[in-house]
Amino acid sequence: MSASSRILNLAVIPGDGIGQEVVAEGLKVLSAALPQDVKLETKEYDFGARRYHATGETLTDADLDALKAHDAILLGAIGDPSVPSGVLERGFLLKLRFAFDHHVNLRPSKLLPGVATPLAGQPEIDFVVVREGTEGPYTGNGGTIRQGTEHEVATEVSVNTAFGVERVVRDAFARAQARPRKKLTLVHKNNVLTFAGHLWTNTFEKVAAEFPEVTTDYLHVDAATIFLVTQPERFDVIVTDNLFGDIITDLAAAVSGGIGVAASGNINPARTFPSMFEPVHGSAPDIAGQGKADPTATVLSVALLLRHLGHEAEATRIEDAVAADLGERVGRPERSTSEIGDALAVRVAG
Amino acid sequence: MSASSRILNLAVIPGDGIGQEVVAEGLKVLSAALPQDVKLETKEYDFGARRYHATGETLTDADLDALKAHDAILLGAIGDPSVPSGVLERGFLLKLRFAFDHHVNLRPSKLLPGVATPLAGQPEIDFVVVREGTEGPYTGNGGTIRQGTEHEVATEVSVNTAFGVERVVRDAFARAQARPRKKLTLVHKNNVLTFAGHLWTNTFEKVAAEFPEVTTDYLHVDAATIFLVTQPERFDVIVTDNLFGDIITDLAAAVSGGIGVAASGNINPARTFPSMFEPVHGSAPDIAGQGKADPTATVLSVALLLRHLGHEAEATRIEDAVAADLGERVGRPERSTSEIGDALAVRVAG
Ligand SMILES: CC(C)[C@H](C(=O)O)[C@@H](O)C(=O)O
Ligand SMILES: CC(C)[C@H](C(=O)O)[C@@H](O)C(=O)O
Repeated sequence: MSASSRILNLAVIPGDGIGQEVVAEGLKVLSAALPQDVKLETKEYDFGARRYHATGETLTDADLDALKAHDAILLGAIGDPSVPSGVLERGFLLKLRFAFDHHVNLRPSKLLPGVATPLAGQPEIDFVVVREGTEGPYTGNGGTIRQGTEHEVATEVSVNTAFGVERVVRDAFARAQARPRKKLTLVHKNNVLTFAGHLWTNTFEKVAAEFPEVTTDYLHVDAATIFLVTQPERFDVIVTDNLFGDIITDLAAAVSGGIGVAASGNINPARTFPSMFEPVHGSAPDIAGQGKADPTATVLSVALLLRHLGHEAEATRIEDAVAADLGERVGRPERSTSEIGDALAVRVAG
Repeated sequence: MSASSRILNLAVIPGDGIGQEVVAEGLKVLSAALPQDVKLETKEYDFGARRYHATGETLTDADLDALKAHDAILLGAIGDPSVPSGVLERGFLLKLRFAFDHHVNLRPSKLLPGVATPLAGQPEIDFVVVREGTEGPYTGNGGTIRQGTEHEVATEVSVNTAFGVERVVRDAFARAQARPRKKLTLVHKNNVLTFAGHLWTNTFEKVAAEFPEVTTDYLHVDAATIFLVTQPERFDVIVTDNLFGDIITDLAAAVSGGIGVAASGNINPARTFPSMFEPVHGSAPDIAGQGKADPTATVLSVALLLRHLGHEAEATRIEDAVAADLGERVGRPERSTSEIGDALAVRVAG
């Protein structure tokens, strides 16, 4: 969909655990935010643990074909303890990211006023991580020999291509260029992972020449975790590989208000396939079905979705509504999932 | 050396930057702590950037032969911006860890009274990370094709063996068993790195059966970073792979007083080769030679060294001295590197 077309044709994947509940609120706020002349059409897909137990399927070719027809995908959460670790992750989440070439995994971290952080003081946190989404140690390359014996050897291969690294680095530079501080930090471990490190570092320096206004910086991933808790204000945009990005964005979420408010977009910038938007949190089966889940992360993912589709003003309206809502959080009684969604929808419509 | 022999034959590698300064204080405290009937013999080795620039060498076979003759190695820091990233890391630090089979990389984290933490409140932090030191993505396996072209592909291979995983997991269980809380957490990413994850998880469960008193737990590495800042008190002993261990121990150091106090041991438990003890921090060239470096991490590494060699009482005396010294830190004027070392030596001798 372009911003000017009149239908937003959305695939909705509630998924497991709290997925259903938070997605319902995301849709509520999306409806409230959409321009009146844009019609929202949704189709729900039943992926996740239920489907896997019923049919053994996680994501078929036919599923992918159906999803392709949509403008974007909103996902709640996938994962359940009843399914062996890795089955839904590799068979659904990662399969979808790879199939739809979601190479820009966008994860903003902003500590909003009134929001609790485990860090002392109230540091200024406002950065975005551009995590590569289709390469690195996530490709599934590797294997096992002599499994279950004392001679077992298991390997995992991190695959990094000039093509894959350059496009995500360029995307990150463009995002840094568009922000007031114009600063980009490469996070890697180029002193140990020297093959991949060389490719990442060289590519970063090459692309930097095209963005002379952007200040650049390099940090080893271990050092980056230190700065994320001691000087988070030093970060503006971070670009990093798939695994390092996975790790530091959970930490980033923790210091900037928790995974209850951490949004993410799995973006295909060229729009050759629909992009997917999802909260960073998981399916939280322990609190599922109780109306306890915070839908804020899903609502903020909806904002990323709208921005990706060109609805910048509507995206900002949602983000402002969330900021205002969180700002009044202190001292307020606990609210249910739908009460939070209702409050946000009212603000957005308002 | 066993606890009963009369000579401690120590290899000393001051290294680069602040290495020289902090090692001098470490030795001062070591001398003060040693039982009177143990004679300290030290031999200094000039490894690091100077040697590399002068000779092109980082660590030769002859060097390794010389180092082998010692009871243990004390290292300050290796690394300098004048040397390309990776040269000293792969050519010296990792080469030594691999050559001397330092498969238990031991990194305790304890937040001592009076020590500042970036975390709000003053959470109880007292855990130890057992990081695998000879496998995983650190093996140097991998390579690059079509380097410098748009078709470059760079790979990094994480190698995990049943032998390597089992010995470090067993070591961690034994350490957990010996601690009051008897809790061991496996940190991995077994939902994505399924080949290595399977080996780690299965081995962990197998060895757990031998330690029925130890409570076990599993966390994905991304989730572990969240808990390290929101609930660090939940950890007692953590066992993890080489790269995850690198990342989470820097974060652990940051939340429990900073890398100024983070000690580590690169341990060969069977003592087939000397173990090496070093502060977690690097060479900090920006403050080198100014007497500004905090030698506490090196002093605590000396405690780990003594414990490894069987001098438990002396190790504890050093740790108690550090705790007492840090406890009086608040409101005290800045001290130089050697003033801190002197104060600790006095307490230890005292
Ligand atoms: C569930 C898992 C496959 C996923 C990842 O590792 O990317 C998750 O941790 C995330 O960050 O989206
Ligand atoms: C310098 C580097 C090779 C090293 C590592 O990655 O192990 C360091 O970060 C550490 O943690 O000791």
